[in-house]
Amino acid sequence: MILTVTLNAALDVTHRLDRLRRYGSNRVRDVAERAGGKGVNVSRVLHALGQPTVVTGLAGGLTGAALRRDLVEAGLADQLLPIEGESRRTVAVVEEQAGDTTILLEPGPVVRPGEWARFLGRLDALLPGAAAVVFSGSLPRGVPEDAYAVLVRRAHAHDVPAVVDADGAALRAALPAGPALVKPNAGELAAATGLADPVAAARSLRAAGAGAVVASLGPDGLIALTPHGGWRARSPERLAGNPTGAGDAAVAALTLGLVAGAPWPDLLAEAVALSAAAVAAPLAGEFDPAVHRRLRSLVDVRPLRT
Amino acid sequence: MILTVTLNAALDVTHRLDRLRRYGSNRVRDVAERAGGKGVNVSRVLHALGQPTVVTGLAGGLTGAALRRDLVEAGLADQLLPIEGESRRTVAVVEEQAGDTTILLEPGPVVRPGEWARFLGRLDALLPGAAAVVFSGSLPRGVPEDAYAVLVRRAHAHDVPAVVDADGAALRAALPAGPALVKPNAGELAAATGLADPVAAARSLRAAGAGAVVASLGPDGLIALTPHGGWRARSPERLAGNPTGAGDAAVAALTLGLVAGAPWPDLLAEAVALSAAAVAAPLAGEFDPAVHRRLRSLVDVRPLRT
Repeated sequence: MILTVTLNAALDVTHRLDRLRRYGSNRVRDVAERAGGKGVNVSRVLHALGQPTVVTGLAGGLTGAALRRDLVEAGLADQLLPIEGESRRTVAVVEEQAGDTTILLEPGPVVRPGEWARFLGRLDALLPGAAAVVFSGSLPRGVPEDAYAVLVRRAHAHDVPAVVDADGAALRAALPAGPALVKPNAGELAAATGLADPVAAARSLRAAGAGAVVASLGPDGLIALTPHGGWRARSPERLAGNPTGAGDAAVAALTLGLVAGAPWPDLLAEAVALSAAAVAAPLAGEFDPAVHRRLRSLVDVRPLRT
Repeated sequence: MILTVTLNAALDVTHRLDRLRRYGSNRVRDVAERAGGKGVNVSRVLHALGQPTVVTGLAGGLTGAALRRDLVEAGLADQLLPIEGESRRTVAVVEEQAGDTTILLEPGPVVRPGEWARFLGRLDALLPGAAAVVFSGSLPRGVPEDAYAVLVRRAHAHDVPAVVDADGAALRAALPAGPALVKPNAGELAAATGLADPVAAARSLRAAGAGAVVASLGPDGLIALTPHGGWRARSPERLAGNPTGAGDAAVAALTLGLVAGAPWPDLLAEAVALSAAAVAAPLAGEFDPAVHRRLRSLVDVRPLRT
């Protein structure tokens, strides 16, 4: 079982309309709601691949109840810890005429110290059944700044490899605890290190404690710096679509590869193919199985010249 | 007790941020939620005036639960009927730099026939305790097109005067049932009648069955066509502020005046003063008591020349 941890789980609300009249009153044609947050998306991809996965993290209030209801409807194992605060919504306003989307991100709850302590207990109870654990996304207010370091150390104590997909201070704070893998995107990599060159930046994250660094560079694919060498992996095709969730699909593939002990080039090819298949699907956490099957043998993986 | 009926009750969500980046990802600084819908706002104003009031209508799902929780917190008597569908949200995105607001209105639930029948039973149970009933706002999908006519006839059967604040087809359908009062605004009046002149338009609504017609013309105040004559009432001052809820405050004052049997000029002066006091308050359903006290004796009311 792969455990995913989403500390700031969200209810993703999508509003569709023809065109948004700014400073006007707009009738929304269609509303959709689903559970969101990066860890939830990773579990959705794993579940669609037929891999056992459990969702944990923090969720509260009526927004938390709505997102948990959706997890159950999606057939995902829900082990989110209930908290007092109200979980955040993200509102995506999709303008169908323009084909473009405006996103509003609520700040989310303030976690109480007792709730954080209870979550650590929940994690300790779940880790013995996990082959790997994925820590994804932003930290809600009220949890310690080094939350991901604390959590990675818990995973180590249970001999469970930890994957961290976070940015900024949350990512930097995790590194000394020695996560098996971190997966920043290009912007997060530059922001976390102050270095413009992705290879140099990835090297500095490894030096700070990450076992492997896989950076997603959008249409330029992935670069990986690992204990066994460095690679660059690229899709043979550029697919149009929805890039939200592409990084989460890559994390799902990377974590499965880590657990299976797959050779890095195979693991990276799978991550690129699954990520491209996620771009080709309309919703975060979904992927196009035909694109996945077609691309997995076509991904170009070559050693990094360093 | 004044009963208010909001068939499409809403959870009003307010997102505050500096400036909305269209087609970008926006972090919301501050989120507020409260129960909304025009009838709910009327009850808020009545409650603030110390007048007994009960809220009924339809509410469902977790959004319905959130709005009902807010009614209880506001000290309002909640007699909303639970339905299966999910109540709508309205999302107001307030840009503090521009001082302007973009509003998104969700469509709301589809009401099932059995739910509509149960609501009629709920209304019959509440009407014997009511001195007047106010039917406000849009109709959710699934209720009959002539819903307000059906409801006004139920009020008649209990000898309870009915006030209707609706627009378009919902308003027109209510008229043959003989509501004691309807309160369109200028745009609703023109749309419901096809007549540009407010006095001629109001006269045609009376001819179609309304006992009295009070039309709110924004800063131009109110015009009233009643069984006892016609009047125009204007505030001596133009106040800057939030016009949302000003019409609901006028409805609260008009309904109180009807119940008390106040002379029409006094009743209209009170409606203009309370409506102006609502413009001066930041949230729909609230009013500035000092503005209300100051203006009530200053409103200019004069007979309409017809």
